[in-house]
Amino acid sequence: MLLPLPTDVSLPLYQRIAADYARAMAIGALQVGERMPSVREVMRRHQVSLSTALQMLRHLEAAGHLEARQRVGYFVRHAQGSALAPNSEPDLSQPVQGSDQAHFVGINEHISLLLEQGRQADVHTDIGGCTPPAGLFDHHYLNKVVAKLLREQPTLLVQGRSLLANQGNHPDFQQAMARRALASGIRVAPADVLATTGNSEAVALALAAVASPGDLVAVESPTYYGLLQVVESLQLQTLEIPCSPRTGMSIEALELAFQTQPRLKAVVVVPELQMPLGARMPDAHKARLVALCTAHGAALIEDDSYGLFVETEQPVKPLKAWDNASGHVIYCQAFNKSLAPGLRQGWMNGGRWHGRVQMLKFAQSRNTQTLGQLVVAEVLGSAVHQRSLAKLKQQLRDQREGMARLVARFFPLGTRLSLPPGGLCLWVELPDGFSSAALFAEALAQGIRIAPGSMFSNSGRYEHCLRLACTHPVSPAMEQACRTLGAMACRQLGQAARG
Amino acid sequence: MLLPLPTDVSLPLYQRIAADYARAMAIGALQVGERMPSVREVMRRHQVSLSTALQMLRHLEAAGHLEARQRVGYFVRHAQGSALAPNSEPDLSQPVQGSDQAHFVGINEHISLLLEQGRQADVHTDIGGCTPPAGLFDHHYLNKVVAKLLREQPTLLVQGRSLLANQGNHPDFQQAMARRALASGIRVAPADVLATTGNSEAVALALAAVASPGDLVAVESPTYYGLLQVVESLQLQTLEIPCSPRTGMSIEALELAFQTQPRLKAVVVVPELQMPLGARMPDAHKARLVALCTAHGAALIEDDSYGLFVETEQPVKPLKAWDNASGHVIYCQAFNKSLAPGLRQGWMNGGRWHGRVQMLKFAQSRNTQTLGQLVVAEVLGSAVHQRSLAKLKQQLRDQREGMARLVARFFPLGTRLSLPPGGLCLWVELPDGFSSAALFAEALAQGIRIAPGSMFSNSGRYEHCLRLACTHPVSPAMEQACRTLGAMACRQLGQAARG
Repeated sequence: MLLPLPTDVSLPLYQRIAADYARAMAIGALQVGERMPSVREVMRRHQVSLSTALQMLRHLEAAGHLEARQRVGYFVRHAQGSALAPNSEPDLSQPVQGSDQAHFVGINEHISLLLEQGRQADVHTDIGGCTPPAGLFDHHYLNKVVAKLLREQPTLLVQGRSLLANQGNHPDFQQAMARRALASGIRVAPADVLATTGNSEAVALALAAVASPGDLVAVESPTYYGLLQVVESLQLQTLEIPCSPRTGMSIEALELAFQTQPRLKAVVVVPELQMPLGARMPDAHKARLVALCTAHGAALIEDDSYGLFVETEQPVKPLKAWDNASGHVIYCQAFNKSLAPGLRQGWMNGGRWHGRVQMLKFAQSRNTQTLGQLVVAEVLGSAVHQRSLAKLKQQLRDQREGMARLVARFFPLGTRLSLPPGGLCLWVELPDGFSSAALFAEALAQGIRIAPGSMFSNSGRYEHCLRLACTHPVSPAMEQACRTLGAMACRQLGQAARG
Repeated sequence: MLLPLPTDVSLPLYQRIAADYARAMAIGALQVGERMPSVREVMRRHQVSLSTALQMLRHLEAAGHLEARQRVGYFVRHAQGSALAPNSEPDLSQPVQGSDQAHFVGINEHISLLLEQGRQADVHTDIGGCTPPAGLFDHHYLNKVVAKLLREQPTLLVQGRSLLANQGNHPDFQQAMARRALASGIRVAPADVLATTGNSEAVALALAAVASPGDLVAVESPTYYGLLQVVESLQLQTLEIPCSPRTGMSIEALELAFQTQPRLKAVVVVPELQMPLGARMPDAHKARLVALCTAHGAALIEDDSYGLFVETEQPVKPLKAWDNASGHVIYCQAFNKSLAPGLRQGWMNGGRWHGRVQMLKFAQSRNTQTLGQLVVAEVLGSAVHQRSLAKLKQQLRDQREGMARLVARFFPLGTRLSLPPGGLCLWVELPDGFSSAALFAEALAQGIRIAPGSMFSNSGRYEHCLRLACTHPVSPAMEQACRTLGAMACRQLGQAARG
């Protein structure tokens, strides 16, 4: 096991530079046995002092990444396997893929079937689901907050926050969300904050508010399977827009779709750490995307639940920040992955459709539980949560890098993988001829659960891909599981097992 | 103020008989100044001993209901106003009312507008909303249960009960609900218990699972406005089936509807304490209703949230108890009115459509929060809750009777009202020519909120009706509010103010 390499900006410079090199090793850009730059090169390249350069190299050595050879220099030590090429860019010359009727009816069943198989199996290593385990959260603090709230507001659980009380949206929660949104450039009045059960309910409400059965919804390709399910459950049809692993949804392809598809009523986008690719959409793209949807009168439904996980010093600007007047962006955010999975607390603002969203929410599930709202309002701005989130991000980063190393070491030659700048998973592309459905079944029989590529599209285009969760520590058991997966994949492709 | 007259079966016989007389006074069947039966008559009529008969009469005297006139007997003392006729039975010769397109689009907006007006007004007396106030629940006990659960399962809030964990349905909750259902004659496997956010989500999921846009849904007339909203939000259309204030939905009218409406896919029924009428469907009707829906392959969606509030010694049997094999009954139950309004915890079993319901739930809102499930599982069978529920029912009964007395005293001549055998509200019918919409607006301007009859139907048939909540104590302020409402209504009808 390698020691974790922290990247928190509050950390010393030498540690941050070390983390960059560790990342290069993780994706195979620096291979085992390769010579590290000399101390002088490091000083020049990073414009640092001698002591910083030395500290950096010794830190990597102590962490097990390098070995020092007397009088020669530092060498990459850990067996990294071969280099991995980054995820492939989409082929924009291909026509945009819509879901035909057959797929439309089938995807929900296909996904449900896979989920059900995963549920029923006796799983010892779960690399399929992307919810961080309980151990990564500070439950002591959350429980204290609950106790405090019930002490201060003893009738909280028996208050029906009904009609007179703002449709179940607690004013403290609304205030907290509006303040938070403002900090990322979004102006939302507290009264226009609608509490939701996680993000799924928010996106489902948004879609139901703006589209009618038979209408088209543009989604990223590949996309989160939950979105494909909700689109189908509302009797809408998806139009899959190619997505770059670096920059997200192709604006050009979407533009073309608007020109040819009059029933295209909504676009659903995860602009930061797109699920499953981990892409971050550049600000210039965001501005164009908002302008494009506004020009076509379409709803741009933004899922901003992963923005919190971006590992950067720069402020992260949601799409909604570009939606200055027309209100075409519907903003959705949930805290189940970042604050407390058990609370399932989220919120949304429906932009120009907010009234309709409110009406639908009220008709279909009435009020959202109050306790969760108050816990989130209390916790979100706190220093304890800031520290806890920073720790969570660091841990996820270590785990992503660790998983990438295991993929590089054990997976077939020709496997591709980009290390995303944050988030909970890796998107792994295997060579043509590989079947992730077959791997899913074979692995499940051995107690290992993965998410096969076919779950992330109606198009059947990602059969050779799979999503690996990076939510669990890279333990010896995980190493063993990746070795097993890699050997199965190699066998499928007629390669010899590696690592 | 009269003293409450308990009706709990554990109470002495004389108190129970006294309660029957008090009820007769409440609805005006026994009028002020009228002579009570003599001691001997009471002995004969109720087959009780002399001492019980005397105790009963003295109890009523002590409670302020009677005055004793020396050597003559007991006389009804409290000014009860005139007698109220019971609610009218529906006219079954009228054709069944479907929602035409205009109504279909409008009802949601109409209801939302009324709710919004109610929200924005400065309300001091709310007789509109039917959620019992916090004071009627035992919040100390609930808070203790939360503390205990978080002590025993400290990571509860940070556990994402995801794919592997039964789709967010906690096994303890499933067990508790299945056990509970069995006690009322329903056989449901724990694995087939689906946790929901209250009852609205359950009914919305049920409807989405069994009907497609354009399909017809039979509902009771009048019905809870939330149901009209959810039907419209799913782009379905309602067919209003006449409903008796005593026995609920007319099975004959429904039978006729099935013969003429091929797109009738679902029937939504509140068999016990129908909202707003308070009707209880006789068992024979229940059996016919289940058989009828089964024969037509339609879903019978049962909302059993009010069965808990029925004031009877007999066990209350849900419709689902008659659904032995075919699974055409979708059972829904929520505990927000009976256990903890703030938790919004409910559950459902989708019968033959359970798989589809699960899929929709998972697609549209994923898991239901765990804490609420565990609180309900822990509290529901407990002796503390049994006592607390009995107290709640007693209080609601006193309040219903108190409200009925105020209506009898202040409302226009010709007002009709049945005192339902349990529940949270009264359905008041005023003479023709009365406009509850006008009363709603006029009362709201004076800080009194009611629910006008037009909210409870697409048909415009209940403009002369209104629903009065009985969830608050009959305080002097409430008496004043009813006096004001009565005077407004009398003025509308050209009568002199009463009381």
